[in-house]
Amino acid sequence: MKFTVSEIAKMLDGTTVGDDTVTIDSAAKIEEGQPGCISFLANSKYEPYIYTTQSSAIIVNKDFVPKQSIGATLIYVENAYTAFTILLEEYQKRIATGKNGIEQPSFIGENSQMGGNGYRGAFSYIGRNCTIGSGVKIYPNAYLGDFVEIGDNTVIHPGVRIYDHTIIGKNCCIFANTVIGSDGFGFAPQADGTYKTIPQLGNVIIEDEVSIGSNTTIDCATMGSTIIRKGVKIDNLVQIAHNVEIGKNTVIAAQAGVSGSSRIGEQCIIAGQVGITGHITLANNTKIGAQSGLGKSIKKEGLSLSGSPARDLTEHLRSMALTRRLPQLEERLKELERKREVSEH
Amino acid sequence: MKFTVSEIAKMLDGTTVGDDTVTIDSAAKIEEGQPGCISFLANSKYEPYIYTTQSSAIIVNKDFVPKQSIGATLIYVENAYTAFTILLEEYQKRIATGKNGIEQPSFIGENSQMGGNGYRGAFSYIGRNCTIGSGVKIYPNAYLGDFVEIGDNTVIHPGVRIYDHTIIGKNCCIFANTVIGSDGFGFAPQADGTYKTIPQLGNVIIEDEVSIGSNTTIDCATMGSTIIRKGVKIDNLVQIAHNVEIGKNTVIAAQAGVSGSSRIGEQCIIAGQVGITGHITLANNTKIGAQSGLGKSIKKEGLSLSGSPARDLTEHLRSMALTRRLPQLEERLKELERKREVSEH
Amino acid sequence: MKFTVSEIAKMLDGTTVGDDTVTIDSAAKIEEGQPGCISFLANSKYEPYIYTTQSSAIIVNKDFVPKQSIGATLIYVENAYTAFTILLEEYQKRIATGKNGIEQPSFIGENSQMGGNGYRGAFSYIGRNCTIGSGVKIYPNAYLGDFVEIGDNTVIHPGVRIYDHTIIGKNCCIFANTVIGSDGFGFAPQADGTYKTIPQLGNVIIEDEVSIGSNTTIDCATMGSTIIRKGVKIDNLVQIAHNVEIGKNTVIAAQAGVSGSSRIGEQCIIAGQVGITGHITLANNTKIGAQSGLGKSIKKEGLSLSGSPARDLTEHLRSMALTRRLPQLEERLKELERKREVSEH
Repeated sequence: MKFTVSEIAKMLDGTTVGDDTVTIDSAAKIEEGQPGCISFLANSKYEPYIYTTQSSAIIVNKDFVPKQSIGATLIYVENAYTAFTILLEEYQKRIATGKNGIEQPSFIGENSQMGGNGYRGAFSYIGRNCTIGSGVKIYPNAYLGDFVEIGDNTVIHPGVRIYDHTIIGKNCCIFANTVIGSDGFGFAPQADGTYKTIPQLGNVIIEDEVSIGSNTTIDCATMGSTIIRKGVKIDNLVQIAHNVEIGKNTVIAAQAGVSGSSRIGEQCIIAGQVGITGHITLANNTKIGAQSGLGKSIKKEGLSLSGSPARDLTEHLRSMALTRRLPQLEERLKELERKREVSEH
Repeated sequence: MKFTVSEIAKMLDGTTVGDDTVTIDSAAKIEEGQPGCISFLANSKYEPYIYTTQSSAIIVNKDFVPKQSIGATLIYVENAYTAFTILLEEYQKRIATGKNGIEQPSFIGENSQMGGNGYRGAFSYIGRNCTIGSGVKIYPNAYLGDFVEIGDNTVIHPGVRIYDHTIIGKNCCIFANTVIGSDGFGFAPQADGTYKTIPQLGNVIIEDEVSIGSNTTIDCATMGSTIIRKGVKIDNLVQIAHNVEIGKNTVIAAQAGVSGSSRIGEQCIIAGQVGITGHITLANNTKIGAQSGLGKSIKKEGLSLSGSPARDLTEHLRSMALTRRLPQLEERLKELERKREVSEH
Repeated sequence: MKFTVSEIAKMLDGTTVGDDTVTIDSAAKIEEGQPGCISFLANSKYEPYIYTTQSSAIIVNKDFVPKQSIGATLIYVENAYTAFTILLEEYQKRIATGKNGIEQPSFIGENSQMGGNGYRGAFSYIGRNCTIGSGVKIYPNAYLGDFVEIGDNTVIHPGVRIYDHTIIGKNCCIFANTVIGSDGFGFAPQADGTYKTIPQLGNVIIEDEVSIGSNTTIDCATMGSTIIRKGVKIDNLVQIAHNVEIGKNTVIAAQAGVSGSSRIGEQCIIAGQVGITGHITLANNTKIGAQSGLGKSIKKEGLSLSGSPARDLTEHLRSMALTRRLPQLEERLKELERKREVSEH
């Protein structure tokens, strides 16, 4: 699919400088652009590339003033980054393969219903008594248990497993092989050293506009619900244990884990490979750095934390720097001891 | 499903104080109870809630003496926690959807046999020469290779992948999308910088009463067997490498990993995100704290370890506290150096 | 399947000492051998076992000189370890169950083609416009989207999910439930606290001879390609984010993660549970120790790094040792302070 720069400028409500009859057939980073590509410049750090890029067109902020001559056609817009995103979305819509209808064989249990305009891929399985909204896509090899509810326009990718009684909102996207609602990890130690399984009777509730990556696991509650609030974004290989609640618009990066019954606030940012212990509360707007381990509740909002155990980022960095300088500190200590000894004699 | 308190008390062999005609339709934590709920009080830390809870009934230990008046009906039993667990199990049995029979299409290879009273979901695949006990449930989209053996009453959840020659015992439960028996990670470096795959010819043996969470991976042995002993409980997203052996009743929490050929003792507790290196031995009853990294064998039984590299928990906590106070230590060192300098002049 | 020692020696181009008519039916480590087993001795650390092993035959290096009498028959070869690997491969070939042909029901979309001598398991799904080479095996319950290309002799294990436009080379092996090409984790923060999904329009390119373990995730690029170069070996539960490039023959162990847009060099070794931040470059031949966290680019080739944040291995070990001795350092500091105080009075 090809567009002229003139067509793109119109789509983005922008104005052009340079040849607007050039055709564009793909997008690229400004530093990797080739003829036929469109790129954007939002961060001034990348400005040097605009003078050397091979891209045919560059979207720039309306206040951008070139310091040298530029080969590419420029498209001036209010916000270059946002405009570029809009362009990508538009492009995505036009290339979307648009799966719909019902492929066979697929399985749907008694009393289950699916709204219109949806897709049910081959080898997908829907249990009994499920209620599925309109525009929902269920890709091949996905599994829904019994009494599952899914809101309009949600997409369930290949191989996703959704256990009984799970409730998922509208406009959610769950990527391949993620498991929602399997048993929480609960075992009661017995006198003879064995463990007795504690029945996990609760469910998982996922609100609207949630995105969940691939191969992630979200366990059902022991009683009640594990809850993922509206607008939460979860990456790949993340573990969310039983009875956890993740607050609105919180973002959790790959391979992080939240242990049982913890409540994460709204608008938090949890980086990759972070571990959060069970039964704690995390205040809104908390940021936790990669690989940190959080072992206790954080009540104050807006903190940045790092380390394992996690604490204030600035303090953590200071301790880390000193740990690195420990060999020198020991040398200084030795020197003092030596002098002391000398002066004692 | 509804029960009266009187019926529940009978089920639990308990005695009631208060109105035993009240009906119960769900279970809740004592601090989150609503009318119609039943809760329990086992840990005295939660006693204050018993005077304010909205739950209709509370299960308590037989020696519990109220300090104030209580609105809920009490059920006195030998052990409140155990009784509550029994109640949940009973409830679970009654609500269980009870999948059984054979759904179509499903695939079973030649010379494979399945005992009575089982379930084989749609799109499940069983290879050749498999021996499957009675009461086994194989959920939709699960895969068993060739020569797999599964003992009575084991449940294989949706999307589980079980490779050739795996042997699984009785009463096991393997949750969705877990992979048992894929190749160990073994490659021999070659002179030209490439790696040659070392054939992985062994299998995985899982004994009775083992529970394995979702999206976990257990590799087959290079030769011989990777072994998971009786009663082991493994959480989600755990990695067990080739030729590992996990001792009886050991518990491994989410996102932990055990590298090749290590032998973990019995009754160990390995917390979330722990990493254990290859070719080591861990004594029975060892406890390893979250995110710890164990790099060498532990021969003494019953230790609690923490940190990366992991060492005695008390020592680790002391070092951590001092690391945190490094800025003050450096101040003290500076002060001494300053005084030294003054006294030298 | 049974071989005589004489047959094996011939296969390995070796010479025997002892009874070469003994029959061998399995392989074992030298310390675990039983009658009927063959083992090897390559590392002199294991030499003591050769005098006590129950194995019937041992493959040894041609320069091995026994210090005591040995019960087993010896097979002298150029390189014992290599010879043993060759033997295992030969064994594997002979026992391979050799799946081939097409099992039904399976799904193949319009305009998709598959070369000869392949295998397509039941409940496998191939989308539209896919090009699949000869000798390719696609196991049951695997999923390929649209416009996927797969080179000759590549094996796609059960439950693998391959998204649209992915390109995979020859002789690759992708183990169960791994996901290739799902969306990168990209969201643009909005003024109202919500996040807007950034369309992920790129793909994943996997070159020849790549091995990828189970339950691993490799995200597609935002634009352009996430690239896994020739000969890379990736273990289970690994996360490779969008726009990452992994250089030739690099090895990545279980549960490690590489964040978006980072470029890993050739011949690197990345141990288990390592985390690598986004937008950095890692030089060729870098080694990173288990659980390390790499936060910045490494330009010098051949370094060994460890710790979180990762730095030179020797420095890291020295700091770790001192951290462990912090209690003693504080004692020495206290002693100096005490003496100082005494001398001041």
